[in-house]
Amino acid sequence: MEIKIMKNILDRNQNKADEVRDILKKNQVLMVNIIGSPGAGKTTLLERSCEELGKKYNIGIIEGDITTDRDAQRLKKYDIPIVVINTEGGCHLDSHSIHKVLGEFNLKKLNILFVENVGNLICPTQFDLGESFKIAILSTTEGDDKPIKYPMLFRDAKAILLNKTDLIPYTNFNIESFQADLRQINPSVPLIQLSCTKKSGIDDWIIWITSHII
Amino acid sequence: MEIKIMKNILDRNQNKADEVRDILKKNQVLMVNIIGSPGAGKTTLLERSCEELGKKYNIGIIEGDITTDRDAQRLKKYDIPIVVINTEGGCHLDSHSIHKVLGEFNLKKLNILFVENVGNLICPTQFDLGESFKIAILSTTEGDDKPIKYPMLFRDAKAILLNKTDLIPYTNFNIESFQADLRQINPSVPLIQLSCTKKSGIDDWIIWITSHII
Repeated sequence: MEIKIMKNILDRNQNKADEVRDILKKNQVLMVNIIGSPGAGKTTLLERSCEELGKKYNIGIIEGDITTDRDAQRLKKYDIPIVVINTEGGCHLDSHSIHKVLGEFNLKKLNILFVENVGNLICPTQFDLGESFKIAILSTTEGDDKPIKYPMLFRDAKAILLNKTDLIPYTNFNIESFQADLRQINPSVPLIQLSCTKKSGIDDWIIWITSHII
Repeated sequence: MEIKIMKNILDRNQNKADEVRDILKKNQVLMVNIIGSPGAGKTTLLERSCEELGKKYNIGIIEGDITTDRDAQRLKKYDIPIVVINTEGGCHLDSHSIHKVLGEFNLKKLNILFVENVGNLICPTQFDLGESFKIAILSTTEGDDKPIKYPMLFRDAKAILLNKTDLIPYTNFNIESFQADLRQINPSVPLIQLSCTKKSGIDDWIIWITSHII
């Protein structure tokens, strides 16, 4: 019974996702749905992305947060349009909320719209926001067993970003074991290793994401 | 409409939670619902707890995982009863699943039943499993802003465990800022600082949890 209810929500969600996708397509905007655990480094990835991409491209950001606008506050220094969606306890964004806030952006001028989803490795994966694609960000401190334990996201994501590589020496994270597990779930997905705070590997991410701009 | 559906699920859940609570009370078993993000250190906390408490008390463990029995595999060396509940994509445990597996334990002999919930800082908070209480485990690498951003768990938990304190020197985690935020959400909850892999602060946890054994 619980599953059936979920199915209804997902169906309703899908309709609005298609509308969002149409609007973005018409305006040639790439929409990237960023999914990761609390503290995986989603906002820091956006900081680096604003710095590197902001020189050449017009960026917009939708910040999904349960409550507060703390992440948006961290990003306002880049002087780009940011809209916060507070889910008020909700564990993921949905396409209805995205549809509602699209009008806040000048889509004709936008190249990329980043969506920072609520910090959660599970629920956001099940909701199509109308994005061009999802990316997963995982930090090394979360452990090398996450692809096998949370397979949905690692199967669906268009790229996997392994963040906080600078902390590997201080943890028991085993990169070989991580890669072997990941390849079992998703044999061909690009894996980008980086440290957003130490600013290493950022170029690989920028080259990859730039290649997808419409 | 979505909220109404959730309400129905929660009501149904509550009934079974009360039944679970009655069974545990009758058998004088303390049930601890452990909630934290993926990689916060829930399983490593259980490793330390088995080592320190297992000498004197009879422990049982329910392992909540989306898929796989990896966490249970890590714990089987302690030769204690473990039951795995695979949620098959579900983002939290519920009281019906707990009720179903209680019969797998010899409750008359058990002192503590630890429940490792699915790695998620949001959804498990909303589901009463019939536990004696919830505890929250957060790792320093997730960032000091988590209590404010995910207030539900930090408000409800009977104790907050701050794990991976050994990694503070390598991150921008600010303990004063963390504590100030936490106190805003929950002025009086005990805060236990520890490193489960480096085995520091474990005594504080053991003393605290032992004081709650019935």
